[in-house]
Amino acid sequence: MRFATVIDPAQPDRPRAAVLQGETWHALGAGDLSALVTSGGLVAGGPTPPVGGPIAGAVPVNPLPSPTKVICCGLNYGDHIAETGRERPRFPTLFPKYADTLVGPTDDVVLPAGVEADWEAELAVVVGAPLRRASRDEAAAAVLGYTVANDVSVRDWQRRTLEWFQGKAWDATTPLGPVVVTPDEVDPAAGLAISCRVNGVEVQRDSTATLVFDAVDLLAYISTFTVLRPGDVVLTGTPGGIGMTRDPAWYLADGDVVETEVEGIGTLRNTVRLTDS
Amino acid sequence: MRFATVIDPAQPDRPRAAVLQGETWHALGAGDLSALVTSGGLVAGGPTPPVGGPIAGAVPVNPLPSPTKVICCGLNYGDHIAETGRERPRFPTLFPKYADTLVGPTDDVVLPAGVEADWEAELAVVVGAPLRRASRDEAAAAVLGYTVANDVSVRDWQRRTLEWFQGKAWDATTPLGPVVVTPDEVDPAAGLAISCRVNGVEVQRDSTATLVFDAVDLLAYISTFTVLRPGDVVLTGTPGGIGMTRDPAWYLADGDVVETEVEGIGTLRNTVRLTDS
Repeated sequence: MRFATVIDPAQPDRPRAAVLQGETWHALGAGDLSALVTSGGLVAGGPTPPVGGPIAGAVPVNPLPSPTKVICCGLNYGDHIAETGRERPRFPTLFPKYADTLVGPTDDVVLPAGVEADWEAELAVVVGAPLRRASRDEAAAAVLGYTVANDVSVRDWQRRTLEWFQGKAWDATTPLGPVVVTPDEVDPAAGLAISCRVNGVEVQRDSTATLVFDAVDLLAYISTFTVLRPGDVVLTGTPGGIGMTRDPAWYLADGDVVETEVEGIGTLRNTVRLTDS
Repeated sequence: MRFATVIDPAQPDRPRAAVLQGETWHALGAGDLSALVTSGGLVAGGPTPPVGGPIAGAVPVNPLPSPTKVICCGLNYGDHIAETGRERPRFPTLFPKYADTLVGPTDDVVLPAGVEADWEAELAVVVGAPLRRASRDEAAAAVLGYTVANDVSVRDWQRRTLEWFQGKAWDATTPLGPVVVTPDEVDPAAGLAISCRVNGVEVQRDSTATLVFDAVDLLAYISTFTVLRPGDVVLTGTPGGIGMTRDPAWYLADGDVVETEVEGIGTLRNTVRLTDS
């Protein structure tokens, strides 16, 4: 199954949670996927909620506008660990974003002029049942599905202090979507191609099979110290090829188009706007 | 003014936002201070909301059960910076907690047996108006008030990776309260004594006047990258005297009583429970 939050062009002010049937999005009984999941209307491994009519020309937007937690793993692909000069980790390196940090799959990414903005293509996992001190099996059963993210990072702010948070949590800078695909349709552990292109030039390519800690590992680990709830999102880390570690460093410029793709899920296409505001 | 969320012993299942008048807490029209502030019923610098009847024997609990953001500053007192072997910073080191991380002023702090739990007495500031890319003056005008926190830290998890988050965001381990005092009554920049006692032994003592980045600095800085909303909480950092940097290191044991005090605001008194669950 493929779920999304979509805009109906006939009612553009009223987003809808939706499910794909054939080539057509059909409405589900909630204003967005966050609301559907947090209300219990859609549960990991549960039945498909009641399906409404087709939405002609539906356009996916940010599927999950209101997660209570958005937690990210850094240093989780072997080649990205190598390019940062570090050793393979014993524990996942975790940092958070906010619901405020997210934007949709085709939204502009707007940052002040002059910052060092960098790309990080990532697989994201969406929680579909509460998790506290979960085993790996319990975490696997709680996966609602997978989606695509770009952990756009403001490197100069990330490097200002020991903690990455202030370079990672700029409002409306992390594209998410376009769809959430249930685990019966995609298996990241078996290997999904993940890639990033900047103005059509491929800058990252790897397979999700090479993750040090996979999505299920991360959910179980995080649930040791903080509860995860339906609709929460975990970003699993980025492969090698970021801009910061290139020689010379390559940062995103005003007008650049960043495409982020995970095989079997979909593609984000976002334009960078570096404004003075 | 002094605000709190209190339990009325006559109706223990129904917390109330409350204001202190003389020696007696009086009910305000909301279930807790988070709800009152997010609804606009209490605004930084605004009028006192309509005051209801007295609540005999009212007991303050966690004043702010549902902030959207709880952001902490590390390395913000000169002696604490020195004890960690670091230089005076140009930028505040920031990391987040969650609403889930907070507990009340007399609640137990419960952690698994075997972890390295440490104390960090802190002044906290409560946001009382939306802040985005705020100047220092705008940030000052948005301070609802000040309260006390203990940024209880799980040092072994904090040290597992580069990012402190997984040692800082254990559910229900950061005491907050007991009251929120408006800035006309307390001025941290002028110097409030801050201290921590473990089983009656003083382990930390400093003045908030020695903060590198004061509460208003932190609100303005954070608002550069992410919006702050009414009811959000910022912890301003801890002075020297933590357990981790002692020789030998001193961690909290099951049954230890931690008292955290800021002059002019109040005292948290929490018992540590290290259980196997």
